[in-house]
Amino acid sequence: MTRSVDLNADMGESFGPWKMGEDETLLDIVSSANIACGFHAGDPDVMAATMRIAVKRGVGVGAHPGFADLQGFGRRRMHLPKETLRNLVRYQLGAAQAMAKAAGGEVRHLKLHGAMANMAAEDPAMARACYEAALDIAPDIIVMVLAATAQQEAVRELGCYWAGEIFADRAYNDDATLVDRSLPGAVIHDPDVAGPRIAAMVKAGAIITESGKHIPTRIDTICLHGDGATAVRIARSVRENLLSEGIEVRPFAATR
Amino acid sequence: MTRSVDLNADMGESFGPWKMGEDETLLDIVSSANIACGFHAGDPDVMAATMRIAVKRGVGVGAHPGFADLQGFGRRRMHLPKETLRNLVRYQLGAAQAMAKAAGGEVRHLKLHGAMANMAAEDPAMARACYEAALDIAPDIIVMVLAATAQQEAVRELGCYWAGEIFADRAYNDDATLVDRSLPGAVIHDPDVAGPRIAAMVKAGAIITESGKHIPTRIDTICLHGDGATAVRIARSVRENLLSEGIEVRPFAATR
Amino acid sequence: MTRSVDLNADMGESFGPWKMGEDETLLDIVSSANIACGFHAGDPDVMAATMRIAVKRGVGVGAHPGFADLQGFGRRRMHLPKETLRNLVRYQLGAAQAMAKAAGGEVRHLKLHGAMANMAAEDPAMARACYEAALDIAPDIIVMVLAATAQQEAVRELGCYWAGEIFADRAYNDDATLVDRSLPGAVIHDPDVAGPRIAAMVKAGAIITESGKHIPTRIDTICLHGDGATAVRIARSVRENLLSEGIEVRPFAATR
Amino acid sequence: MTRSVDLNADMGESFGPWKMGEDETLLDIVSSANIACGFHAGDPDVMAATMRIAVKRGVGVGAHPGFADLQGFGRRRMHLPKETLRNLVRYQLGAAQAMAKAAGGEVRHLKLHGAMANMAAEDPAMARACYEAALDIAPDIIVMVLAATAQQEAVRELGCYWAGEIFADRAYNDDATLVDRSLPGAVIHDPDVAGPRIAAMVKAGAIITESGKHIPTRIDTICLHGDGATAVRIARSVRENLLSEGIEVRPFAATR
Repeated sequence: MTRSVDLNADMGESFGPWKMGEDETLLDIVSSANIACGFHAGDPDVMAATMRIAVKRGVGVGAHPGFADLQGFGRRRMHLPKETLRNLVRYQLGAAQAMAKAAGGEVRHLKLHGAMANMAAEDPAMARACYEAALDIAPDIIVMVLAATAQQEAVRELGCYWAGEIFADRAYNDDATLVDRSLPGAVIHDPDVAGPRIAAMVKAGAIITESGKHIPTRIDTICLHGDGATAVRIARSVRENLLSEGIEVRPFAATR
Repeated sequence: MTRSVDLNADMGESFGPWKMGEDETLLDIVSSANIACGFHAGDPDVMAATMRIAVKRGVGVGAHPGFADLQGFGRRRMHLPKETLRNLVRYQLGAAQAMAKAAGGEVRHLKLHGAMANMAAEDPAMARACYEAALDIAPDIIVMVLAATAQQEAVRELGCYWAGEIFADRAYNDDATLVDRSLPGAVIHDPDVAGPRIAAMVKAGAIITESGKHIPTRIDTICLHGDGATAVRIARSVRENLLSEGIEVRPFAATR
Repeated sequence: MTRSVDLNADMGESFGPWKMGEDETLLDIVSSANIACGFHAGDPDVMAATMRIAVKRGVGVGAHPGFADLQGFGRRRMHLPKETLRNLVRYQLGAAQAMAKAAGGEVRHLKLHGAMANMAAEDPAMARACYEAALDIAPDIIVMVLAATAQQEAVRELGCYWAGEIFADRAYNDDATLVDRSLPGAVIHDPDVAGPRIAAMVKAGAIITESGKHIPTRIDTICLHGDGATAVRIARSVRENLLSEGIEVRPFAATR
Repeated sequence: MTRSVDLNADMGESFGPWKMGEDETLLDIVSSANIACGFHAGDPDVMAATMRIAVKRGVGVGAHPGFADLQGFGRRRMHLPKETLRNLVRYQLGAAQAMAKAAGGEVRHLKLHGAMANMAAEDPAMARACYEAALDIAPDIIVMVLAATAQQEAVRELGCYWAGEIFADRAYNDDATLVDRSLPGAVIHDPDVAGPRIAAMVKAGAIITESGKHIPTRIDTICLHGDGATAVRIARSVRENLLSEGIEVRPFAATR
């Protein structure tokens, strides 16, 4: 049996005249693209352009909804009633579906963005509210979750398709949480470290923590970043290390 | 053969804490609701609530996209590239489709709002761009057009389903344009005038102008307003006069 | 010596085509108006119109900045870096100063709105950041604070002009916090209760809690509300009860 | 007598996480900065940071208001009532004044942005409405106008301080309008052409058109651009050519 894994990155994060990210380059590396839906980043024109390229290159299109906070890029925590959250997700997913359809494709997966994702990773009820809302609209959508967090708990309860995600460039604590960004080594900047490390995790079927502990978990996709000095080099290193270990890069399957 | 006509009104125009219109009342009178999509009015919560009631009462749900101009309520003319217009319509229609689906219904028709509608009524290429964009997403959608304008010209060219609309409370010139709002008699405020006048037009299958001229045109739907002192009374008068003339009020059929 | 107290209300909370509140009526009752600055409510046109009337009637003009969250009316908690908060307050205060100047007046006081106010009432460092930012721009501005909260703590430390505020329609716990809205009696709806109660507090120079306890505090101003069924009647009752007790209603003085 | 001229550039056009322009570099070249006010670009944090550097380097701070159209960067024409325009300018100018004060400086000039500027260059009544609004707030502000356009007509009528501006990188027709961007030679990309050309115009006290015609006009400031491949090189070339011709670069004086 050939092992495979998906590579994903956030995209379509430009807005109006402002450019962000190396979408064109990353779309040659990843197999899934999480495309901003106009609330924290992206606008209808940016969504259209990004989806067109993703569809053309056979990259899986995902909706990447976030809080309505452009200045804060959806990274500032906002406290919303559950029903407001649900409607926020439905609205953005629907918009993404339309843009994908116009581009000749379709939305295959959903990933929460920024503070919405972070809050949902801590709060299974919030994660569940967001995911249920998406499933109302698209029952077969694949929900991308941060492996071993409350997000994963939520998709297991819901019984929907899901994909477990780990980060290419972040160190993990022994409880599967991320090492705080303020600590040394929390963010991995060296492509020569990031690539082999991820290949090892995928082979092990486990998050390998800073201390070397193995936390078995489903690893369906690896999150790459599109900005930062070494982002593209890390992305390439991860891809190459996976391939050289005999692990194919391709979109995750729809599994429960 | 029983004659029938549709009654439509703009709805879901509240935003956040701000209420607008008499949606609950009008939803008992109209057969189609044009629901704002969050750019010029409405927000995901308002859309959800409005669609839920519309679906429950069997009122046809329509997407009512407009310019991204909340302060100006989409009534200020903006000059956008055609492709930006297309993406604006696609995005808002997709969002509306998702909200409708979550409410147990579906988007049946599309009507342009405010300045976008006015500009498209004068410019068939602009109308066509907007409608094509909607048809990309929803090939069976019924496009509601201002009868005898460039909007109608566009749907005829496209060969899509459409419904021709006249206004319950506006006087017409002999060339089928609306009498300028600044002129006396341009807006009809008296329910006892509005009701019989519309019933006469529907029976005649023609716009009857101020001078009494008949301009034959397809009248599939009558636009009612939800605000203003006599709006609801005009709406009721129109409905009652139609019924008493043996004209049923029901959603327009999908015809080309 | 004649005792006096100020009456304040939030105003200018309409936005674009959406009306909110009974500003015209309240401007005959209050002596200070807290005018929204365009981020959570209000827009430049609404600010201009509201300030023009306030200036004409001799009502003190205040800037009422809030979070950039129109849909949530600034009532949803957002977590912002201190410097971002400072810039948010500076920007909105500056805009208010310009609109006041164009209306022939000037901004006399500052009051934080909604979630920004609530968070600052719990967090003296946040209150201080917001107030310092305002004082950078307007060193003589009078800061309106929720009496006996962290807001008051902040102005005392800063040594600036301030005015202590209590609510006309909210019951107080024995620790000077507000009775939770979900509890019976938390909100006072009866004008015949609200009026005498506030007059008693002003005479006592103390918050009188639900249990009857007196918490001595500086009461410079009473917060009235402009919406809700009985809001205007409560406002009138408070004013009349104060006057009949020989307490004048006039803008607070600039005291430290 | 030493001749001098001002160099200006648009700045503070980043927004939230999105960067735009080479502000740091340009602030060493220009003597005046036109700083976006948060409606078409810029946010309170960006304004604060940009003004702080401008003040530190002795560069004159200007408010650069535009239409409320972030996605369109204020470049899409919007049709607003005059009083709405006035309030838009007042609001943005006031916000800029506050941010400048907090940065230890003050707003010295005003320049309209994008479509608002283009429309005002064609329509003296619109230009006048915008400028009057600014003068209500800041009677001594210097209004930067496109030389020989309706903007200049408006400031002459108003009798306010003003500065006439020409473009470093645009060719002129014989009637002082800009050569249409679609025509060859309309935009000057070669620093070695731009520099000497501008020095010649300043020495001549005239716009020199493509055909070589001299149109005498007050040239108080040269508009440089901050983006595009050769923008910074053109800026440097203009500055160097002026200096080598004995023309000092310094902020324009307040003249009527």
